[in-house]
Amino acid sequence: MVNSSTVMNIHAGESTQSDDGRRRVIIEGVSPEIDAGRFPIKRTVGEPVTVEADVFTDGHDALTCQVLYKREDESDWTEVDMKPLVNDRWSATFTVQKQTGYRYTIVAWVDHFKTWSRDLEKRLAAGQDVTVDRQIGALIIEQAAARAEGSDSTALQTYAGLVRDPNEDVEIALNPALAALMQRNADRQFSTMYANVLEIVVERVRARFSTWYELFPRSASPEPGRHGTFKDVEARLPAIKQMGFDVLYLPPIHPIGTTFRKGKNNSVTAEPGEPGSPWAIGSVDGGHKAIHSELGTLDDFRHLVETARAEGMDIAMDIAFQCSPDHPYVREHPEWFRHRPDGTIQYAENPPKKYQDIYPFDFETDNWSELWNELKSVFTYWCEQGVRVFRVDNPHTKPFPFWEWTIGEVKREYPDTIFLSEAFTRPRVLYRLAKLGFTQSYNYFAWRNTRYELTEYLTELTTTEVQEYCRPNFWPNTPDILPEYLQVGGRPAFISRLVLAATLGASYGIYGPAYELTDNTPLELGREEYLHSEKYEIKQWDINRPDSLASIITLVNRARHENPALQSNTGLTFHDTGNEALIAYTKATADKENAILAVVNLDPNYVQSGWVNLPLEDLGIEPDQPYQVHDLIGGGRYLWSGPSNYIELNPHAIPAHVFRIRHRVRTERDFDYFV
Amino acid sequence: MVNSSTVMNIHAGESTQSDDGRRRVIIEGVSPEIDAGRFPIKRTVGEPVTVEADVFTDGHDALTCQVLYKREDESDWTEVDMKPLVNDRWSATFTVQKQTGYRYTIVAWVDHFKTWSRDLEKRLAAGQDVTVDRQIGALIIEQAAARAEGSDSTALQTYAGLVRDPNEDVEIALNPALAALMQRNADRQFSTMYANVLEIVVERVRARFSTWYELFPRSASPEPGRHGTFKDVEARLPAIKQMGFDVLYLPPIHPIGTTFRKGKNNSVTAEPGEPGSPWAIGSVDGGHKAIHSELGTLDDFRHLVETARAEGMDIAMDIAFQCSPDHPYVREHPEWFRHRPDGTIQYAENPPKKYQDIYPFDFETDNWSELWNELKSVFTYWCEQGVRVFRVDNPHTKPFPFWEWTIGEVKREYPDTIFLSEAFTRPRVLYRLAKLGFTQSYNYFAWRNTRYELTEYLTELTTTEVQEYCRPNFWPNTPDILPEYLQVGGRPAFISRLVLAATLGASYGIYGPAYELTDNTPLELGREEYLHSEKYEIKQWDINRPDSLASIITLVNRARHENPALQSNTGLTFHDTGNEALIAYTKATADKENAILAVVNLDPNYVQSGWVNLPLEDLGIEPDQPYQVHDLIGGGRYLWSGPSNYIELNPHAIPAHVFRIRHRVRTERDFDYFV
Repeated sequence: MVNSSTVMNIHAGESTQSDDGRRRVIIEGVSPEIDAGRFPIKRTVGEPVTVEADVFTDGHDALTCQVLYKREDESDWTEVDMKPLVNDRWSATFTVQKQTGYRYTIVAWVDHFKTWSRDLEKRLAAGQDVTVDRQIGALIIEQAAARAEGSDSTALQTYAGLVRDPNEDVEIALNPALAALMQRNADRQFSTMYANVLEIVVERVRARFSTWYELFPRSASPEPGRHGTFKDVEARLPAIKQMGFDVLYLPPIHPIGTTFRKGKNNSVTAEPGEPGSPWAIGSVDGGHKAIHSELGTLDDFRHLVETARAEGMDIAMDIAFQCSPDHPYVREHPEWFRHRPDGTIQYAENPPKKYQDIYPFDFETDNWSELWNELKSVFTYWCEQGVRVFRVDNPHTKPFPFWEWTIGEVKREYPDTIFLSEAFTRPRVLYRLAKLGFTQSYNYFAWRNTRYELTEYLTELTTTEVQEYCRPNFWPNTPDILPEYLQVGGRPAFISRLVLAATLGASYGIYGPAYELTDNTPLELGREEYLHSEKYEIKQWDINRPDSLASIITLVNRARHENPALQSNTGLTFHDTGNEALIAYTKATADKENAILAVVNLDPNYVQSGWVNLPLEDLGIEPDQPYQVHDLIGGGRYLWSGPSNYIELNPHAIPAHVFRIRHRVRTERDFDYFV
Repeated sequence: MVNSSTVMNIHAGESTQSDDGRRRVIIEGVSPEIDAGRFPIKRTVGEPVTVEADVFTDGHDALTCQVLYKREDESDWTEVDMKPLVNDRWSATFTVQKQTGYRYTIVAWVDHFKTWSRDLEKRLAAGQDVTVDRQIGALIIEQAAARAEGSDSTALQTYAGLVRDPNEDVEIALNPALAALMQRNADRQFSTMYANVLEIVVERVRARFSTWYELFPRSASPEPGRHGTFKDVEARLPAIKQMGFDVLYLPPIHPIGTTFRKGKNNSVTAEPGEPGSPWAIGSVDGGHKAIHSELGTLDDFRHLVETARAEGMDIAMDIAFQCSPDHPYVREHPEWFRHRPDGTIQYAENPPKKYQDIYPFDFETDNWSELWNELKSVFTYWCEQGVRVFRVDNPHTKPFPFWEWTIGEVKREYPDTIFLSEAFTRPRVLYRLAKLGFTQSYNYFAWRNTRYELTEYLTELTTTEVQEYCRPNFWPNTPDILPEYLQVGGRPAFISRLVLAATLGASYGIYGPAYELTDNTPLELGREEYLHSEKYEIKQWDINRPDSLASIITLVNRARHENPALQSNTGLTFHDTGNEALIAYTKATADKENAILAVVNLDPNYVQSGWVNLPLEDLGIEPDQPYQVHDLIGGGRYLWSGPSNYIELNPHAIPAHVFRIRHRVRTERDFDYFV
């Protein structure tokens, strides 16, 4: 442990030339490092952080390189020795154990003792006289003894004497115990500290591994014609948990505006009695901190949140920062909205389309700071009610600095808060929102259907720098998005997309019961809107229908919960099948102890077959040993040997295998009687 | 033009959250930008700089993005509008005209007028009523009028009235003249300035495009047995210029030490009368600022430098910061060397190898600052004698901070100085030396022989970020390096490697006369040392030998001087030949006016043939028109049509074509009588 302020003072970094010119080590090409340290990387409690860098000096001298890391509340760095890889690249790994901010950087120095030991070995191997070299080494050790204290100093003095004495065996100089002593008391006066101190945001495990279910509370009533309530939702919690979900996400629960209220199928005028869209937030009954009275009371909501928590589940609230014309903000804070020359307030529009039921906030208002504080207080208000997961509607239509500040402020008070970004927008914008603090992000999964598209996209998400700051959450459908693939593919498509989302992503979600009941009728051909969308009307779902996908969903989610390989976005590898309609990939933990092979038929119409080629050694399988694959959906167990195995999938049965790979199969040699 | 200090004050950058929260634009992913702006990019006078960045904001508002640039001695930025490419990427190009430092950065803002105009067009196309929108637009224009001065203000007032007046044609609002006025008087109060101001080092053209010839002056005497002199070198200048070279590089010209002097073929003891290695610098006659007396006087040297300059050539000096034991520094500054416990000075070694004729400097000496100043003064001393090109020996064995400081200091006084880094070392080290200031760099060209190797390496050098800071100088041989390919390939190999170096690289050089006389006998099999290396003995070259490659070298260099495409490392593209022994590539200027196609047979033994496939449109050739290729070495002219053309190369004739592609061939339609 090194006191950090001391290190910071002594090692002012290699980039300042006014510094001591004897700092000879260069540290560059550090990874992970997002935008030159402008943004933190993300981890969850217990996850490893592998830091790499190009570290080198002039000439032939040996180096010592260390990663330094600490929690933000610690003053001392913990040091981890880096190991050289190849081509001047060094690497070290540490694990983050607490839900808090961490810092890391790199320090390195020219290590004269290491250089001397290495050269001594070469001289000895060449049979050279090393009398003078022993004296040089003894001097280096004596200098370390002078720096050291207590027993280290004494031991080093003793070593110095032995190394110097030509009658002693020279091998003492190469003693690992001496090397350890020397490293502990190394001469760091000319060490180089990397110019940036980098940050890690360490969150709770659910930030990485989460399984979401979305439902409209107002459709949760078991009695036809009655408006659903929080109590109805609470009654459904056990079944949702049983299916394997751990986040229950509710669309906005606030009072709904009446002015320009939308009717069924997004018609511009609502008939009397139509409930309107929950995203048209605010009425005379209140705004973002109020509850739509037909859903129940604040106490009912708190009870739901508490019940969920007791079951290990989170209730996710929808935060949509926009107002119906009836929202109290419009009356109380007209300065937060843009006014038109005719005296009206500017409604939302994407010319020539108009959304007159919605007023966006004017983030360029002179009162922006007040506005920010009020919007932040929406989050903290619901945090006070026990909510810790927020799904943020259209974050890309509000300023990036606002989100960075708000998420930072909320997490300072409630560090276990999770923010899911509904950033259905262009890639740079999506990624920026992830960088600046959103925990998870919606993404383009719903539109990645072919093997090529899925392979390319998942490779970008899980093997590039993106993996360090963007945690995708895969949704095969949402109330806004009924993808064409589901419309035309029917039940096989619903199953294959479910398996893909659940096994490709550590976090995924479905909008149900539309999903398990395979609702796939669009408003019209070529549109992704649902016909009779729940956004504009209350639905009655027959959740007990015998063709519900609930049992398959349960199996898939069980596989996720039982297999750590599926709980992280690392360790994903795609494999050749020789058939574009058949996608195959493995996910494996770093230690290879847990490995899943998924094979999915992407063709919802026809039987497809192919040979899956596995890199056995990468999966920890001995190439000449048989191994078992156990289908966690179908239940079958198969004994395979060799890398290449035949797969055939009928979409009208089950279009996917999710195999757990069991490394080793018992043989006769495992029994006592086998000699 | 915007006053830079004003901009810097107003636009404090998007990364500070304490700033005004209404700066909604994000600027990231800027290129070129080396190590987050730690190092400058490099250009020569007259070269373009294309700056790209990801620039975006929340929502649907339109942006204006500008590159700002200025010379380091200017206070005002010049603005260049960036154009959107795709996926939020923007681009702009400007040209650097002076040999000095430049700065550049990016500024962008949400442009409400642009948004309003774009939306107005959509509204008009949809036939919507735009009465209120005209009022909104008029307000935006009036605000600009209030910001503007003089005629701009008046004109904007007039426009505002016309836009507001429902009786005027609304098209006035979309007038480009109005758009230009609005841009000039844009509302930049919430603009975002990119966090980094980036640097460009602009050097003279020779930094980019140079043709080097190395010779040992002591071997330049036309009379056998007489030590060569600067006067002999001067007599050879016209012939070297005639061959097309513009930099004549001389190994060290200083007094040579006698202690542990090396003999012929690097033998550890020299016979009496042997001249020793010029790199064992320093004797009783002086050190790095003295001249070996047998070469002539300082005046002779200055005369050589001046004569060369008058011919448009540079004399490049070798700067090797190391000392023979006889160097005056050893006596005068023992503190600059490392002392061993037995009282001796530490000689150079790479255990178990010893180089007792050389003392390296100890850059960890307490007197490092004095040492740096003295070594810098070696450069400035020779600059005072008129030298402006230095080839720096083994820079990777001296500290990086030393070079960064020294090159900066020398160039501050002598901005037209060129430093060639002899960084035959690992890639990270080579690139770091380039980043910190070396003008050009030796590299791995000598060991890249196959089509795959050449394609991969040149692609790295010319299409990645490396191109922004590292200018390779390709040497097919040096006094230290007689590559195996030349040893076994003989004359065809010498020609093909010459053509490759000269057409792949804007800068290249040969160590002659060993090269043009195809000297290819190694000291022993498997070694790259020359037998009877000129490093250790004076040679007598028969430069008029009829089999000299001088005439081919002359043709190749003439092609370089006559074709701008060969004077830059940009515009290189490799093409398929269907034959691994046949490499084909084009180099073209950005405007495609000048394009060279080189095809080289890499097999020094056998005839090789193949079909070269050219991307005609990329080369500015109309696909349905014939085009002429003119072989600048062989002289032949061929009429080709279509992308695919047959090539056959006999290594025992000339193993390469260097075609100038002539876009257009005259036809009957070019004549007056053709109607």
